[in-house]
Amino acid sequence: MNINLQQLIQWRREFHRFPETGWSEFWTTSKIADYLEEMGFEILLGQQIINPDFVRGRNLTIVEQGLANAQAYGANSQWLERMNGYTGCVAVFDSGKPGKTIAFRFDIDCVNVTESVAATHRPHQEGFSSINPGFMHACGHDGHITIGLGTAQWIMQNKDKLRGKIKLVFQPAEEGVRGAAAIAASGILDDVDYFAGSHLSFCASSGTIISNPKNFLSTTKVDIRYQGKPAHAGAAPHLGRHAVLAAAHAVTQLHGISRHGEGMTRINVGVLRAGEGRNVIPTSAEIQLEVRGENKAINDYMYQQVLQIAKGVALSFDVEYETEIMGEAVDMINDPEMIALVEDIANQLPQIQVGNAEYPFNASEDATILGRRVQDNGGKSIYFIIGANRTAEHHQAEFDFDESQLVTGVQIYTSLVQKLLA
Amino acid sequence: MNINLQQLIQWRREFHRFPETGWSEFWTTSKIADYLEEMGFEILLGQQIINPDFVRGRNLTIVEQGLANAQAYGANSQWLERMNGYTGCVAVFDSGKPGKTIAFRFDIDCVNVTESVAATHRPHQEGFSSINPGFMHACGHDGHITIGLGTAQWIMQNKDKLRGKIKLVFQPAEEGVRGAAAIAASGILDDVDYFAGSHLSFCASSGTIISNPKNFLSTTKVDIRYQGKPAHAGAAPHLGRHAVLAAAHAVTQLHGISRHGEGMTRINVGVLRAGEGRNVIPTSAEIQLEVRGENKAINDYMYQQVLQIAKGVALSFDVEYETEIMGEAVDMINDPEMIALVEDIANQLPQIQVGNAEYPFNASEDATILGRRVQDNGGKSIYFIIGANRTAEHHQAEFDFDESQLVTGVQIYTSLVQKLLA
Amino acid sequence: MNINLQQLIQWRREFHRFPETGWSEFWTTSKIADYLEEMGFEILLGQQIINPDFVRGRNLTIVEQGLANAQAYGANSQWLERMNGYTGCVAVFDSGKPGKTIAFRFDIDCVNVTESVAATHRPHQEGFSSINPGFMHACGHDGHITIGLGTAQWIMQNKDKLRGKIKLVFQPAEEGVRGAAAIAASGILDDVDYFAGSHLSFCASSGTIISNPKNFLSTTKVDIRYQGKPAHAGAAPHLGRHAVLAAAHAVTQLHGISRHGEGMTRINVGVLRAGEGRNVIPTSAEIQLEVRGENKAINDYMYQQVLQIAKGVALSFDVEYETEIMGEAVDMINDPEMIALVEDIANQLPQIQVGNAEYPFNASEDATILGRRVQDNGGKSIYFIIGANRTAEHHQAEFDFDESQLVTGVQIYTSLVQKLLA
Amino acid sequence: MNINLQQLIQWRREFHRFPETGWSEFWTTSKIADYLEEMGFEILLGQQIINPDFVRGRNLTIVEQGLANAQAYGANSQWLERMNGYTGCVAVFDSGKPGKTIAFRFDIDCVNVTESVAATHRPHQEGFSSINPGFMHACGHDGHITIGLGTAQWIMQNKDKLRGKIKLVFQPAEEGVRGAAAIAASGILDDVDYFAGSHLSFCASSGTIISNPKNFLSTTKVDIRYQGKPAHAGAAPHLGRHAVLAAAHAVTQLHGISRHGEGMTRINVGVLRAGEGRNVIPTSAEIQLEVRGENKAINDYMYQQVLQIAKGVALSFDVEYETEIMGEAVDMINDPEMIALVEDIANQLPQIQVGNAEYPFNASEDATILGRRVQDNGGKSIYFIIGANRTAEHHQAEFDFDESQLVTGVQIYTSLVQKLLA
Repeated sequence: MNINLQQLIQWRREFHRFPETGWSEFWTTSKIADYLEEMGFEILLGQQIINPDFVRGRNLTIVEQGLANAQAYGANSQWLERMNGYTGCVAVFDSGKPGKTIAFRFDIDCVNVTESVAATHRPHQEGFSSINPGFMHACGHDGHITIGLGTAQWIMQNKDKLRGKIKLVFQPAEEGVRGAAAIAASGILDDVDYFAGSHLSFCASSGTIISNPKNFLSTTKVDIRYQGKPAHAGAAPHLGRHAVLAAAHAVTQLHGISRHGEGMTRINVGVLRAGEGRNVIPTSAEIQLEVRGENKAINDYMYQQVLQIAKGVALSFDVEYETEIMGEAVDMINDPEMIALVEDIANQLPQIQVGNAEYPFNASEDATILGRRVQDNGGKSIYFIIGANRTAEHHQAEFDFDESQLVTGVQIYTSLVQKLLA
Repeated sequence: MNINLQQLIQWRREFHRFPETGWSEFWTTSKIADYLEEMGFEILLGQQIINPDFVRGRNLTIVEQGLANAQAYGANSQWLERMNGYTGCVAVFDSGKPGKTIAFRFDIDCVNVTESVAATHRPHQEGFSSINPGFMHACGHDGHITIGLGTAQWIMQNKDKLRGKIKLVFQPAEEGVRGAAAIAASGILDDVDYFAGSHLSFCASSGTIISNPKNFLSTTKVDIRYQGKPAHAGAAPHLGRHAVLAAAHAVTQLHGISRHGEGMTRINVGVLRAGEGRNVIPTSAEIQLEVRGENKAINDYMYQQVLQIAKGVALSFDVEYETEIMGEAVDMINDPEMIALVEDIANQLPQIQVGNAEYPFNASEDATILGRRVQDNGGKSIYFIIGANRTAEHHQAEFDFDESQLVTGVQIYTSLVQKLLA
Repeated sequence: MNINLQQLIQWRREFHRFPETGWSEFWTTSKIADYLEEMGFEILLGQQIINPDFVRGRNLTIVEQGLANAQAYGANSQWLERMNGYTGCVAVFDSGKPGKTIAFRFDIDCVNVTESVAATHRPHQEGFSSINPGFMHACGHDGHITIGLGTAQWIMQNKDKLRGKIKLVFQPAEEGVRGAAAIAASGILDDVDYFAGSHLSFCASSGTIISNPKNFLSTTKVDIRYQGKPAHAGAAPHLGRHAVLAAAHAVTQLHGISRHGEGMTRINVGVLRAGEGRNVIPTSAEIQLEVRGENKAINDYMYQQVLQIAKGVALSFDVEYETEIMGEAVDMINDPEMIALVEDIANQLPQIQVGNAEYPFNASEDATILGRRVQDNGGKSIYFIIGANRTAEHHQAEFDFDESQLVTGVQIYTSLVQKLLA
Repeated sequence: MNINLQQLIQWRREFHRFPETGWSEFWTTSKIADYLEEMGFEILLGQQIINPDFVRGRNLTIVEQGLANAQAYGANSQWLERMNGYTGCVAVFDSGKPGKTIAFRFDIDCVNVTESVAATHRPHQEGFSSINPGFMHACGHDGHITIGLGTAQWIMQNKDKLRGKIKLVFQPAEEGVRGAAAIAASGILDDVDYFAGSHLSFCASSGTIISNPKNFLSTTKVDIRYQGKPAHAGAAPHLGRHAVLAAAHAVTQLHGISRHGEGMTRINVGVLRAGEGRNVIPTSAEIQLEVRGENKAINDYMYQQVLQIAKGVALSFDVEYETEIMGEAVDMINDPEMIALVEDIANQLPQIQVGNAEYPFNASEDATILGRRVQDNGGKSIYFIIGANRTAEHHQAEFDFDESQLVTGVQIYTSLVQKLLA
């Protein structure tokens, strides 16, 4: 297998220069589509791959600003039109021969961090750091896109040897676990037999693969909004409906949701914004929270309690309310068959070790929603870690990773294709 | 007018010896009925004068214990049968001649206080102190009964000179403002043209009448009860429905009910009893509270907010709930015609002064519910204070009052009869 | 007395065109100082009249923006230097002859409202509407400045007939009751024998004076800020100190501060801004609230309770906290001598009626702090209403008032000078 | 080894007939001391084995009633005097020869349950059911006492073959995990090399030993008491200090204590009793709660948060407060050497199987405090389960157990003695 590291580095740096935050990856999607179409893939966009009813945490102001920026930066207007406001794309290769259907997922959004200008920061030093102020590929998704493109290139170079069908999913809005639910709900993965996703770096260093990370936390991100009624706080407070007071009581109730006897739970109201002025009974309040659970059932318990409290407090204070899911992920249970497959591949790569099987992920990933969808339809799934040394923690301004490991990523995905479809 | 003070003192001391708490005044009612029937009045009892749907704060254990005590103490079984569990009576005199209908109200219950055995306490000293442990006529209602009997006696002595009709209401359960609503709702006062009620002592000393006390607070006494679901607090807390937590949140919400722009309000959760054991998710909670308002509309606002919160919290915590009105009173607006009448009477009594017209009552009285009922039906009402020196505050174990002022009370009521029906 | 209405209207419209919000009235102060110095007054500025320790609700960003705007609009750099960042001025006239010292107060700030461009809105129609977007003299303080200037002009025209001393206080930041405390604490009014302040319009129409408005509410505006400690909400929530949870509990406690038995109280948390992101234990929270009381003592009770709760909650949640007074006013008790004086003056003006003596103001005014300071030092004070028809409520975008009543204002103030110092 | 089952059954039934609740086991202690002294043990009582500063959840009324009952039932007055109010005893055998020191713990208190009178309930049927109404040995501690006595008897029968020293701890008040802390703090176990404790039945049936049960939860039982200040709820609510409101806010804060990132936690306010009457600002409140943690450090985190909140709320509401530990236990980590020893013994007993090594206890036991004390001083500890069929769950009125397993218990303890001291 002949992987061209220089090509991978060139792609990675191109995407690194123009990072776009979740649901605004218009230029990124357009560029990916350009490359994939040129390679020969069928390109699916917009509502072909996004079910709008399950879109989470998509802010219209950010979408519109992102679209304007992408247009200014040279995004392909033909793709923009087909996207119809929804970022991300799926590239399909159909061999025409009977065989399995496999899908790989690569996430494409950046984080809201201003990139470091330290002399020691290589992207700055070598001139490929972010030109989109306030945004940065500080989580490695630029690497994920690149691994996807490298895999795609190999597929087309070897297409005659392959059977079955391949779907390469370039997912928007992974940060905040917002994008996967809409892709899952589009049904685009419902015919998939094998699904794989991965993350670069995390706690694994260059030369290591973690084939079965544990402790993916199920999570739901929720906003609660209360709408009260104004009144003069001095003259007629009894005529108001107090949104701040409602929200405050909601917070005290939410943090008191009972522990679950069968496993770990979490609740956090991270943001509360409410009220208009000191001398008016306040009319609006927004609570931004997340719940987590050791598994999907426990997380669902937490989410149901949140809904119950949101409603009860609205009744107590006679205010209007709404809740909105802003993001979600489930726990991941890798299929043993897939774990064995990835470990076999890794063991055949001389430069790669299989790392600790009990590595705890201790965070959330919405690839789990895609993997669970495939499993619920009878397919098999895996999510693994591709080790890579890094210069700082994920999401920090000084983050950079060992680009040589992009090759490792492409090798694993292409080996999976070979083993499953050749 | 010839009033026999010795007779009044004898009656008062007889009732003082056997005090009965609200809704358990079986012996007291029976004894009053004995006297009144002997004088020649028609006696109304039980559901003739009580609408059970509006009975407030009647505890069945106390009713049954009270009934047993009354029987042991010699209550007349004929009256007990007619009472059918509900204390209080109304004595009716009908002159047979056309004329107005007037009603006077005398309350008959005691308070839950153990009477003083101090050497200086006259009831103890002279051997007429309470023989019903834990209960005491420490508010002066024994005096109120006596004034009612004295007035009744005079009426019958002068019946040939009278026109119209008289109803003497001996009301149970004034403490906690519990008894009046059921009497009002029976309709027994709906034909009344003039209504009067009064209290002995308060802040008025012997020789003074307060014809128009102010600041009667409208009030509603409410219990809220939550019913949850038990679960082991260690093994399965998520299966429980937590009545203590619900009740605690209810309390924090209740005390936050907004002030009213148009007048004074009050809220007090005075008692909270909840839970069964430390290691079980608790299933029961009882909140005992009261609200008050400067007038009936403001008090109603407070009460509606209480209901709203009770319901909202039940929803938040998925517990069952019920609310019960345990007592109620409204504000009193004395009719000018009645004020003038009482002042005229007082001015004609050489030993009596009319006191400060702006005296603030600053408490609640359920005679207000009877007075308001009469006013709502087109009649006129008054509630006044009959001054009397006392040895301690109302409701204290050392309370006693100047018995000579019983004469003043009888003089005012009988003068009202003369002026209105002669 | 010869008052030039055209001059008054010209002044009013000049100030109306360039409204400045509280603590940013640099151009306004400069312009007032220009006029008053030209008339012959001694001008006091900056820390001569402002005690920085008692400055309330002064936002540095707004101050700096205001200063830049004022410079651009032509404010006199000599005055700006003397102001040293603090707006407002006091003009002093000293007759050199023995006599009383009197002070009048005129407030000079605007409100944060964008002025109407409706065809029917006269300032727009006649070309004198606000050119400072987002700000408008919608409360009539442009009229107050004008009355002050008109009064000043008369004083200088009649200075030879006057005895004693006059201080004309042009106060910044009345909106939010922020400016008076710092002027009072400067001591500039501590030698004053008679103090007067007033408001145009309110509920009084053209031709009416309210000499003794009631129900000025004492109030304190407070911010509470909590500072917690961040931690990952999934991995290590127990290491955080949760500022949102602390703030929410503070709000639920604050709204539960007990009613006061001796008079009306209010509490309102109008704004709550807290937290940084959904998945981090939040570290910052700001609560903006106000309390009110029927009088200063009751308001102080509320404020002390706020401080107690702010501290207790900080302890419960182990977070840092600070509280800051953002504004304050007390109740006003007009001295009978001053009421009589103003009524005498009004009765001598053929076009003016003295209105309802029991008119309830039902709002807060920080002139009360100045008046109270004078009274505490043995002087006498009054705050009155100068009726004026208006086109909309105070603080609304369509607000305008009957400019002819500016004459009434000047007549009353100059008559006060004549009566007190001539 | 010759164990007399009939003797064991006779003892067990004797103790079953007179169950005594925690800290009132005066007759039980006296009887145990009678038997042990007769066998030849040195008897330690009262403050020889109890450190009063660490006594948890000891109710004086129950102690006094228990003492009176015990005297009436024939307790030995000599022992009662030495107990000096504190129940429990330690029997010491010193061989006089060098060797290790070992200690076994047997708990002696009953639960507050009224014993079943069902025909199928053997204690009732065979005439040995509880004669102390409201109390019952429904947890099997009568069996524990019996195993202790059987072990003691064997020791004395074989004393010449033994080396070292033995301490048999008969511990009071295990229910509510109240008694062990005071025994540990007395220092009586500080010279112990090997410690063992056990429970009959639980989820293990006759013929099974669980040598290493898991998931002992660390726990602390705490009472919080608030003391406020009364005031009339209508006339002067601002003068009160509201204990109910403080307690309610404490509960809402307590249930919001953050989850711990490193392991399971629990919090439960199981009981809340507060307030005196509806129309008085309430002055007293008691909160009964428990916290738990996956290990001692996590439980300590919870307990520290409870103390923090108790204090913060007291400050917010200006009320007095106190907290009291009512019970406590830690997690248990059996030493591998002791596990191996017990399994060896069990494997040598033909009628016994070693059960599932991963059996989760999922409850709290204060023998853990004694075991941890021994470990902290360099000794080794074990807590194991002696299987026994039973007729109902522990703490139920129909509870009874397979008495034949008392022999198993004695065999294991005496085998431990042989292996460690022979």
